[in-house]
Amino acid sequence: MFLLKRKLRQLMLNPPRVLALGFAGLILIGAILLNLPIASKSGESIGFINALFTSASSVCVTGLVVVNTGEYWSLFGQIVIICLIQMGGLGFMTLATLVALILGKKITLKERLIIKEQLNQETMSGLVKLTRYVIFSTLAIEGLGAFFLSTRFIPRYGFVKGLWFSIFHSISAFCNAGFDITGNSIVPFKGDIIVNLTIAFLIIIGGLGFSVYIDMSRHKRFNRLSLHSKLVLMITLILIIVGMILFYLIECNNPGTLKTLSTKERILSSFFQSVVTRTAGFNSIDMSKMKDTTTFVMIILMFIGGSPGSTAGGIKTTTFGAILLTTFTVIKGGRNVVAYKKRIPQEIIYRALAIASIGLFLVTIISMILTISEDANFLDLLFETTSAFGTVGLSRGVTPDLSNFGKVSIMITMYLGRVGPLTMAFAFAKRQKNSIKNYRYSEGNILVG
Amino acid sequence: MFLLKRKLRQLMLNPPRVLALGFAGLILIGAILLNLPIASKSGESIGFINALFTSASSVCVTGLVVVNTGEYWSLFGQIVIICLIQMGGLGFMTLATLVALILGKKITLKERLIIKEQLNQETMSGLVKLTRYVIFSTLAIEGLGAFFLSTRFIPRYGFVKGLWFSIFHSISAFCNAGFDITGNSIVPFKGDIIVNLTIAFLIIIGGLGFSVYIDMSRHKRFNRLSLHSKLVLMITLILIIVGMILFYLIECNNPGTLKTLSTKERILSSFFQSVVTRTAGFNSIDMSKMKDTTTFVMIILMFIGGSPGSTAGGIKTTTFGAILLTTFTVIKGGRNVVAYKKRIPQEIIYRALAIASIGLFLVTIISMILTISEDANFLDLLFETTSAFGTVGLSRGVTPDLSNFGKVSIMITMYLGRVGPLTMAFAFAKRQKNSIKNYRYSEGNILVG
Ligand SMILES: [K+]
Ligand SMILES: [K+]
Repeated sequence: MFLLKRKLRQLMLNPPRVLALGFAGLILIGAILLNLPIASKSGESIGFINALFTSASSVCVTGLVVVNTGEYWSLFGQIVIICLIQMGGLGFMTLATLVALILGKKITLKERLIIKEQLNQETMSGLVKLTRYVIFSTLAIEGLGAFFLSTRFIPRYGFVKGLWFSIFHSISAFCNAGFDITGNSIVPFKGDIIVNLTIAFLIIIGGLGFSVYIDMSRHKRFNRLSLHSKLVLMITLILIIVGMILFYLIECNNPGTLKTLSTKERILSSFFQSVVTRTAGFNSIDMSKMKDTTTFVMIILMFIGGSPGSTAGGIKTTTFGAILLTTFTVIKGGRNVVAYKKRIPQEIIYRALAIASIGLFLVTIISMILTISEDANFLDLLFETTSAFGTVGLSRGVTPDLSNFGKVSIMITMYLGRVGPLTMAFAFAKRQKNSIKNYRYSEGNILVG
Repeated sequence: MFLLKRKLRQLMLNPPRVLALGFAGLILIGAILLNLPIASKSGESIGFINALFTSASSVCVTGLVVVNTGEYWSLFGQIVIICLIQMGGLGFMTLATLVALILGKKITLKERLIIKEQLNQETMSGLVKLTRYVIFSTLAIEGLGAFFLSTRFIPRYGFVKGLWFSIFHSISAFCNAGFDITGNSIVPFKGDIIVNLTIAFLIIIGGLGFSVYIDMSRHKRFNRLSLHSKLVLMITLILIIVGMILFYLIECNNPGTLKTLSTKERILSSFFQSVVTRTAGFNSIDMSKMKDTTTFVMIILMFIGGSPGSTAGGIKTTTFGAILLTTFTVIKGGRNVVAYKKRIPQEIIYRALAIASIGLFLVTIISMILTISEDANFLDLLFETTSAFGTVGLSRGVTPDLSNFGKVSIMITMYLGRVGPLTMAFAFAKRQKNSIKNYRYSEGNILVG
């Protein structure tokens, strides 16, 4: 009895495990609600696998769908979905803190630890303040986004529907979810500057991570920001620009995508597609008509994803940055990885290496399994798997036709991509208690490359 | 004048640069010879681009071909090709040492440095002895291989042709070149145990690297081997077994490959294909009839390649091993990467990371460029590019139909794959003279994953 209690306490004191199980629980609750007949417009239940898939896709803010969100689900279903997105995006623990705050109770150290893990915040102090800040800024930003969107949606869809559409898409964009209820993503608005820019900025802000905003609001100048914030901003900027240029250059002669557009629309679409590809999963252009080259570029962008502690998935911009910096350091013959006059410790580099390899391994294994179980083009399956891992939600149209086995595989990939492969490993792997013992080993050289 | 002399001396004292330029020179000489009309059976010149491609493929021991080696080239052409393979495989600097030895001249320290770079040998002593050892064991192993092959080739092709075929394929196998003159690789011998095992063992021995044999001949027991040798042997074994099992399981129901074979032939073919895929480029099975899943497995194996200091290409088994070990270490929460009770230094891990990222970057960029310039399936282009980078030479049939631009791209990939991306970077990048200055920077933390 005492042993059981201690085991239970140990479990609860392992924040990655609580995080992993919490997400799983939320997905299950969502699946039960979406499985109800009233969740669909037709009044018939969608079936458990599809309900589970949609719930997982919502909670993991992925946006891969088996049915068209706008056409299939009833208002009740859509509300369940957007709530799951908001909870998944903000992190269920932040929500738990909100509840705790409202009830006026003090949160425990254990709960603080979990929120810390969730937000990747290094310092323990001010976590309650941080959580309050996170929730209020999220609501403020989403409100502002919904306002801008409503200026275009209300004239088109009428007041009630237009307002609902504005709120839904603002939350979906800020949480980097990529769910849409227009029926065809934002293809109908591909030339509309306000809709494109609002959604793009909601996605960018949502994908930077809260620690970066806090840093930015404290230190107004770039030079004074922390190394983390500098790297996040720089890599994000580089990825957006490179993606935009590649997308423009490769697709500008493709009649299925950019060729028929005006120069203004081409630039806007390229910018938009570059921004959303890394994590958000909206599309203003038909994905299945893209060239293989662009598809491959997008697979890489999706794999990299957004920034840590944000609503985005993927291996994260800083992981990519750390690998890039290490590579340049080795080429130049240096021993230490230096960025903005700060040395990045070995521990972080090893961690980045591990995250990238686990990510690559996961995407590879799942794509391989899908090439056996599904009857589809390899590139499309790789695209869909990476989209799930990066919790992006872009699709080349394969997802609705997946077998149940394929749906479960993609579901697992979304879940692992959202929780983070390393967090997952930390949650369930037996960890070395004392790694100091390794110091007694002598160095052994190997030749690489 | 003095400045020019000093510049020239500086150039010569940079071993990676001499290596890179030496390979380029050998490729050019080979191209001139293969461009001659007498090199082809028809008596007409093949044209410079194709001659250059064949020469690059031979020197880089890749085996990708624009024409069928057995059907197109005259005996003169085939002799040029096998000589280029032997020189490329052994390394042109080892050959230069041989010449120096024959002429009775002492080799200079500078030349020793270059051989050291070439063979990845850590110690400077006994390099002449090593070179002699390398050359004589190569000839001995190739002779033995040719003998075994001749027991099957002479009865089939007659004495002279059979002997020539035996010598050609033994050299090609040991140097991991994958060139064949049977007209259809070793598909005609897919059930022949002697041919399969002889070629497989020549490839395995050639792909381990000389430092491993020397280590093995000195210390007979596995426990006494160096960390490098242990890792090379272990990773090679794991890759062969995993590749064999995957190949068997995925292809056993494919009528185009394994289904029509007996169980014995299936196992033999799976073993053979797993061995050759990582570097040697022979095939006993039609590559273009393989399933996408197998193709993808093979792309990964080709990317990993053989071991350092061997005739193989790719990022190398030890690089892959170092990344794998680091990942497990991070998952377990350890700080030091430990293998066989030895700590692998940070420098090596960073190097492995850099090699893998440069390799990935190269394969990605070239595949992307090819999807624009060529009219072929994405998976086939990725396969061909990885085959070139890993100097494997397996083909899904795309190479002969490449545009000149595509041929040049694949040629560059083969060259970079053989010289090694990091060696290439060392050869021409401006290196930090004093990296100690970096120690003055304070540590800066970033969040990854
Ligand atoms: K998404
Ligand atoms: K080869």
